[in-house]
Amino acid sequence: MYLHVQRLINEIVPDEPDPAAANALQEGLGGQFGEMRTMMQYLFQSINFRGPAGKPYRDLLQGIGTEEISHVELIGTTIARLLDGSPRYQGSPTDPLDTPGAGGATPLAIALDQSNIHHYLVAAQGALPVDAAGNPWSGSYVYNSGNLVLDLLYNLMLESTGRLQKCRIYEMTANKTARSTIAYLIVRDQAHENAYARALETLGVDWGKVLPIPKTNAEQFPEVKKLLDLGLQSKQYTFDLAAQSEAGKIYQGMSPSQDGTVLDASEQAPEGVPSTIAAERFEEFAPGLDPDLLALIQATADLEMADVQPLYGPVAPAPGATT
Amino acid sequence: MYLHVQRLINEIVPDEPDPAAANALQEGLGGQFGEMRTMMQYLFQSINFRGPAGKPYRDLLQGIGTEEISHVELIGTTIARLLDGSPRYQGSPTDPLDTPGAGGATPLAIALDQSNIHHYLVAAQGALPVDAAGNPWSGSYVYNSGNLVLDLLYNLMLESTGRLQKCRIYEMTANKTARSTIAYLIVRDQAHENAYARALETLGVDWGKVLPIPKTNAEQFPEVKKLLDLGLQSKQYTFDLAAQSEAGKIYQGMSPSQDGTVLDASEQAPEGVPSTIAAERFEEFAPGLDPDLLALIQATADLEMADVQPLYGPVAPAPGATT
Amino acid sequence: MYLHVQRLINEIVPDEPDPAAANALQEGLGGQFGEMRTMMQYLFQSINFRGPAGKPYRDLLQGIGTEEISHVELIGTTIARLLDGSPRYQGSPTDPLDTPGAGGATPLAIALDQSNIHHYLVAAQGALPVDAAGNPWSGSYVYNSGNLVLDLLYNLMLESTGRLQKCRIYEMTANKTARSTIAYLIVRDQAHENAYARALETLGVDWGKVLPIPKTNAEQFPEVKKLLDLGLQSKQYTFDLAAQSEAGKIYQGMSPSQDGTVLDASEQAPEGVPSTIAAERFEEFAPGLDPDLLALIQATADLEMADVQPLYGPVAPAPGATT
Amino acid sequence: MYLHVQRLINEIVPDEPDPAAANALQEGLGGQFGEMRTMMQYLFQSINFRGPAGKPYRDLLQGIGTEEISHVELIGTTIARLLDGSPRYQGSPTDPLDTPGAGGATPLAIALDQSNIHHYLVAAQGALPVDAAGNPWSGSYVYNSGNLVLDLLYNLMLESTGRLQKCRIYEMTANKTARSTIAYLIVRDQAHENAYARALETLGVDWGKVLPIPKTNAEQFPEVKKLLDLGLQSKQYTFDLAAQSEAGKIYQGMSPSQDGTVLDASEQAPEGVPSTIAAERFEEFAPGLDPDLLALIQATADLEMADVQPLYGPVAPAPGATT
Amino acid sequence: MYLHVQRLINEIVPDEPDPAAANALQEGLGGQFGEMRTMMQYLFQSINFRGPAGKPYRDLLQGIGTEEISHVELIGTTIARLLDGSPRYQGSPTDPLDTPGAGGATPLAIALDQSNIHHYLVAAQGALPVDAAGNPWSGSYVYNSGNLVLDLLYNLMLESTGRLQKCRIYEMTANKTARSTIAYLIVRDQAHENAYARALETLGVDWGKVLPIPKTNAEQFPEVKKLLDLGLQSKQYTFDLAAQSEAGKIYQGMSPSQDGTVLDASEQAPEGVPSTIAAERFEEFAPGLDPDLLALIQATADLEMADVQPLYGPVAPAPGATT
Amino acid sequence: MYLHVQRLINEIVPDEPDPAAANALQEGLGGQFGEMRTMMQYLFQSINFRGPAGKPYRDLLQGIGTEEISHVELIGTTIARLLDGSPRYQGSPTDPLDTPGAGGATPLAIALDQSNIHHYLVAAQGALPVDAAGNPWSGSYVYNSGNLVLDLLYNLMLESTGRLQKCRIYEMTANKTARSTIAYLIVRDQAHENAYARALETLGVDWGKVLPIPKTNAEQFPEVKKLLDLGLQSKQYTFDLAAQSEAGKIYQGMSPSQDGTVLDASEQAPEGVPSTIAAERFEEFAPGLDPDLLALIQATADLEMADVQPLYGPVAPAPGATT
Repeated sequence: MYLHVQRLINEIVPDEPDPAAANALQEGLGGQFGEMRTMMQYLFQSINFRGPAGKPYRDLLQGIGTEEISHVELIGTTIARLLDGSPRYQGSPTDPLDTPGAGGATPLAIALDQSNIHHYLVAAQGALPVDAAGNPWSGSYVYNSGNLVLDLLYNLMLESTGRLQKCRIYEMTANKTARSTIAYLIVRDQAHENAYARALETLGVDWGKVLPIPKTNAEQFPEVKKLLDLGLQSKQYTFDLAAQSEAGKIYQGMSPSQDGTVLDASEQAPEGVPSTIAAERFEEFAPGLDPDLLALIQATADLEMADVQPLYGPVAPAPGATT
Repeated sequence: MYLHVQRLINEIVPDEPDPAAANALQEGLGGQFGEMRTMMQYLFQSINFRGPAGKPYRDLLQGIGTEEISHVELIGTTIARLLDGSPRYQGSPTDPLDTPGAGGATPLAIALDQSNIHHYLVAAQGALPVDAAGNPWSGSYVYNSGNLVLDLLYNLMLESTGRLQKCRIYEMTANKTARSTIAYLIVRDQAHENAYARALETLGVDWGKVLPIPKTNAEQFPEVKKLLDLGLQSKQYTFDLAAQSEAGKIYQGMSPSQDGTVLDASEQAPEGVPSTIAAERFEEFAPGLDPDLLALIQATADLEMADVQPLYGPVAPAPGATT
Repeated sequence: MYLHVQRLINEIVPDEPDPAAANALQEGLGGQFGEMRTMMQYLFQSINFRGPAGKPYRDLLQGIGTEEISHVELIGTTIARLLDGSPRYQGSPTDPLDTPGAGGATPLAIALDQSNIHHYLVAAQGALPVDAAGNPWSGSYVYNSGNLVLDLLYNLMLESTGRLQKCRIYEMTANKTARSTIAYLIVRDQAHENAYARALETLGVDWGKVLPIPKTNAEQFPEVKKLLDLGLQSKQYTFDLAAQSEAGKIYQGMSPSQDGTVLDASEQAPEGVPSTIAAERFEEFAPGLDPDLLALIQATADLEMADVQPLYGPVAPAPGATT
Repeated sequence: MYLHVQRLINEIVPDEPDPAAANALQEGLGGQFGEMRTMMQYLFQSINFRGPAGKPYRDLLQGIGTEEISHVELIGTTIARLLDGSPRYQGSPTDPLDTPGAGGATPLAIALDQSNIHHYLVAAQGALPVDAAGNPWSGSYVYNSGNLVLDLLYNLMLESTGRLQKCRIYEMTANKTARSTIAYLIVRDQAHENAYARALETLGVDWGKVLPIPKTNAEQFPEVKKLLDLGLQSKQYTFDLAAQSEAGKIYQGMSPSQDGTVLDASEQAPEGVPSTIAAERFEEFAPGLDPDLLALIQATADLEMADVQPLYGPVAPAPGATT
Repeated sequence: MYLHVQRLINEIVPDEPDPAAANALQEGLGGQFGEMRTMMQYLFQSINFRGPAGKPYRDLLQGIGTEEISHVELIGTTIARLLDGSPRYQGSPTDPLDTPGAGGATPLAIALDQSNIHHYLVAAQGALPVDAAGNPWSGSYVYNSGNLVLDLLYNLMLESTGRLQKCRIYEMTANKTARSTIAYLIVRDQAHENAYARALETLGVDWGKVLPIPKTNAEQFPEVKKLLDLGLQSKQYTFDLAAQSEAGKIYQGMSPSQDGTVLDASEQAPEGVPSTIAAERFEEFAPGLDPDLLALIQATADLEMADVQPLYGPVAPAPGATT
Repeated sequence: MYLHVQRLINEIVPDEPDPAAANALQEGLGGQFGEMRTMMQYLFQSINFRGPAGKPYRDLLQGIGTEEISHVELIGTTIARLLDGSPRYQGSPTDPLDTPGAGGATPLAIALDQSNIHHYLVAAQGALPVDAAGNPWSGSYVYNSGNLVLDLLYNLMLESTGRLQKCRIYEMTANKTARSTIAYLIVRDQAHENAYARALETLGVDWGKVLPIPKTNAEQFPEVKKLLDLGLQSKQYTFDLAAQSEAGKIYQGMSPSQDGTVLDASEQAPEGVPSTIAAERFEEFAPGLDPDLLALIQATADLEMADVQPLYGPVAPAPGATT
């Protein structure tokens, strides 16, 4: 069972809208080696896991898989922010609902020249479950052979390829919004590479010189360097609410990345940052409510919500819970 | 950000393996109107949501979306159990690794006659991200127009179609494992129909006689009846760890299902039941470890795990945390 | 612009439900060489046609394309009839809505063993836009190079392959419902082969011995023989409401099939037979109306409809217009 | 059975070629919510319809479905016109066949920068059965649950989403050819929304404030305003040749759009405008005939066509039959 | 550049037709981890290879890739043989062309119950480019990151998964035709695993206990044991006509499989066995020639063929060249 | 069985990198009518061929199919060369591994504006198995009806459409690298059209004026003219190592192209040109080896390779074997 907290797993640095960068990031969201893939692959591997003696391995898969859902949330939100307002449309301050297209204007003309017109035509300047070439995510991507060694090896290759592609995306754009999330995911991919490489080490592999983490010298990317200095590449959260995860039995010892750090699985989750809700975009008719409906919603918002009785969460407010 | 607890959202009743029923349930997992679809659709609608005034609607989508991840976990596990051991293969008690196929035996011969041979050939008797006809799940299923009314209307139709198909699946098999999960999902789909129908009511619709919940008289299915008597069709959990969800501002009042119940969003999450790990299946070479590797894993299992410092979860053991 | 008359282009002979035969016929509906393909291909070729001097060729494509829509209607209806009632479900005569699944029954159990479970789970015992192996129809099938000779040659090959596959389907089942439609389409495919072969003859090809109509000796199939005796293989209707079609300038002269007949395009359309509406299937919750809604519909049905002012159609009732 | 008349259902206003606009319109032709989808969905819903008492509903689906075929014809032709001549290739007046590419020229160089290179490489500057992102149309789009209420609800959502997307396309381009067809389809989509909303009203729904027609204020688009003033949003043709349609029993009364108009189904079909055939494009080798073949075709064109005996159409020439 | 010799790379043992086994083998031909995948993946990796210093690695990929084409030929032929004659159709000895379907017979009735009806309806009892669940092979399967270590790691995982699935197929059927090819491919997959594992060893990896060759104890499968005794798992042919391959610089030394053998790349190609042409199948209208056309072909067969001047091949007949 | 020689079947003329041209050529590699299609289609038709009397036809298919593998190699290499270095990235001469992305640079920024971002993000500036619109190659393209006449007719249409599209690509770019390969394939497609047209002539067709080779006057393309003057359009190699091919019994006599040449199948293979290996691209981390690994590889390269014992190839070095 899964629970949610209204916080993003990492901060997104503000910058200009940039639809081309947004499209490149789609590979990290809906591509063959993106976050939807890792999320689903580890979820299926956890569900179908065989061998009770292997619980630490199952828990490692489960924990990383849970983190990947938050990565989908993070990169999806990043893409949405990069797209939001990209038409630089200037609506009427007094009557925004009337204005779009008035007098034959073409406020969405920008869409015709972009990498994926669906960002405007279908998704109202939001993220899509597709890759950077527009291919929809496919269930056929999920690899789950049932054989533990093969699944671990595939996962190691999957994280390494994801990280390789993100290093290439980093080289495609200097947009700070894009790079803040890309840099974070590069480092977290390395943490996951460490997890699967270490798991294979517990079974006998000595990686020698070729742990397949592409030699990208990503530490020379300044945003990445900052996170490496924090040791984020050697930390794996359990994301486990009841302290039942045994992933720490594997995720420990010297890092297979040979960077001198020690693997650490002693934290439940990062603190995260509050998430926010995007503004309306009238030229997309999103959310498309007229003043009457907005008034109805306002009335709803004034209602007192029933008290929620927490079962798994803290009674005290979560850190930074001031959205 | 998402967290996990090692509990299933509902109990799965044991029964015989039944690969045909397992395949029918794949529609509820990986079909166009299955749980992977609802999970992804609400996740994208939450991420791309527009209009801060609409937070209660966003929170409703977010909460149901989080529940759907647990539904994927539940129905995936159910399918895996229905498949597990379906070849009724009897391995050697002393040296299981040697036996499969020895002397020309065909322990997986059953696979040739099943609905989806991939359950044996690819997935080691586990769940697949495909529908009952074998089509892989596709990102093109996700609907997120950005227009609030249309998104709510689509979601209502989506839940209703999912429930309609599950009622048909119920009529296809009497297997108790299959029916226990199908019945639970039929009732939860109704709770979600109530959510979206009620959200549209807050905006002015009066459903009159045709709230599009198929007139299946599902309450005549005994397993469904039991859950309806518990009022599960009128309850929506927040799945929110920090009590920030405002979904309860919408999910309240008389049920649009006109069954006389009152909608209630005052609970964080159901208690759930402990989850377990499936047994090895040697004829599938899953997990495929030989005695040496098993010994290594056992040594790993004896290690002391580092203490996890909880940030969001309770210090005290979760209810029933005795997996 | 298209108009419709509530008549099927050919009669469907009644026989037992036969879901296996229904599934085989899906190839003829939604397969790569089925009627959806020919319909869409000729529609696109007509729309994109280049060269005003080639109007007779455009009109030939347009006319055959229009016929193919009626073929989609015919084969879709045939499939629906073959599936309808295949579970042989015996509902309660007094309260049909309550009965499905009552007491744990499994009225749709048959679905688990069929070629395509979607016929029951998704389509309520109706036709689907997929082929016999369950692949959805794809726009990538449509061939329209813009080069007249290549388009004609492709169409000739397309009709011949469709006819070849239908001859194979004929050999797969003796069900009379299936065979009545298959036999009709075998003969009409030949009429279309004649059309495209003749069009190429007007441009200089002499087919000699290998007009690519598979040597199936289909005239030995009794249902086919009957239609050949009527000369249906050498007749092409214009399906043109305003007598503007010039297809007859091409579809004339001795048949390239070398069966001694003369091609004839002097008729507008076949007479057809009245179409009917299928019965309810309660176990599918289709149409899923309860007594109150049925009463509402009945009230609607008693209303007087406004008089329709015909623009293109006859004032007098069409032949056999007594549905 | 279907018949055809060589007239387009609405006039296409001439303007410059505009391949970017053409590509945006592909969403309206081959997209998930485009005209191929509505055409096929209603065709399947008509074929598989259950419940003879529901004939007025079946006839409504049938009539709208027939109209959608003409919409495919209209938008496909519009796309073809927007593409036609877009390379602005100037062929030799005396020997057009020799010139393309002569001396290393690159008359199709424009194709490399366009949204969909297939418009030039595959389709000879014609329409394709794909969406604006290049995805081929898929049979998996078709929704036909067999449950009348769900099918009507889906259709309402489908038309509304199609209209929403067309409003966005309108905002993307000021090309008059594109806008004339987009505006017409926006209004016709509204007529179909009225049809499905009204059908649900006959079953008890009171839409109150949220009939899910996006609040686009499309009446401020001048081309749309003109058609609304003609009342086209409240008129549904039967497209029925033998006056057997009972759709008018539903499509009547005050419009659910609450624009004060009365729904009217008393006309058979609009008058339409004559259709024409596009010019040759030598740089595409379309139609690719040399002088000899053109002479053969001319000879064919001089032949006297056999008289067509009308069964369903008028004996007198149709209005405007002077193509 | 590629050349061909009319010999199969391994012998196919005769046995009864067995369409279910044929369908299982389709996974090995057209599946995600089948021979079409390995063939295309290594072909692309060879074409796109970067780094002249890495020639031995490129040549290794090139040589294995060339072998995979012969594997496609081998497994495709095996599937065709397993399907051939499966309807056990008894044609007329005197006039085979007339008989199929005569008198209403259904010689292809078997097709309705098989795993993939397309084997009969589309492919005339031949192999298809699809997997065992009927999914067409997709170019999206090909992995070629350009990063040498990742490509080698992926290839190792790919071969191991292919071998795992083939071991499962072995357990599904005792048909000798199927098993002779499956056993051969199991052993050749191991040879390729050795190649990629060894290549990674040259770069520093010590596999210890977990070279990801599934612990299937495949040597207990008798057909596999025989080939292992011949050392086929430790031999890699160059398939190189001009002795330019440097693959032997890598494929040498002790086998990473730790079976005590030494890797050997000193042979060009196996001897192979003559290939043959399948018989006609009249019920499939394949090849569909009537007596006149057969006579024409016979006349052609009597012609003297022009002498071929060999550039790369031997003047003397190849071993066993007596097809 | 297949063998390989490290030579390209035709020379690629050097010119500037040109990613737009590279993308257009993808249609010729991975498109519906590209070289992967012809290669796979003829391979399957050879494998599934029926009728021993038809061996000359089988051998013709086999030989052309083998040539198509070399065409895949040729056009894939051409695409890779057109992409290689397209970012014009200038790395540090002393420490190339460190430089990419240093200081926030965006060496791959060019990727955001290209036709297919995957060329940079996924394929490291290499060829992809997709078409020019980014659709992955699909096994559903392969046509193999089993009926000889239909298969030949389809192949003729396939080659003609491929040639038509290549003529259009020729008109899209003046890049010499692109045109050298396109021109060669235009002429070879014609040789294959001649093969299938001639095969149909042996069965009785007289093509008259419309052999469906588009009237592109391609001989006016200078690069094409040069090859036509060499007679390449009328020559078909056997690509057969043991002189067993009987294709020459068909490929003989006057060319059906009516250009006055005589068809000739008396050569085994063209001489070809040596192939080379592309340079590293550090900004793509391809091959991504650091100095230590490069040193390891160099050590490997110094090893003496075991002598290969030729079975099928010549002992003497192949012509030009000095790669």
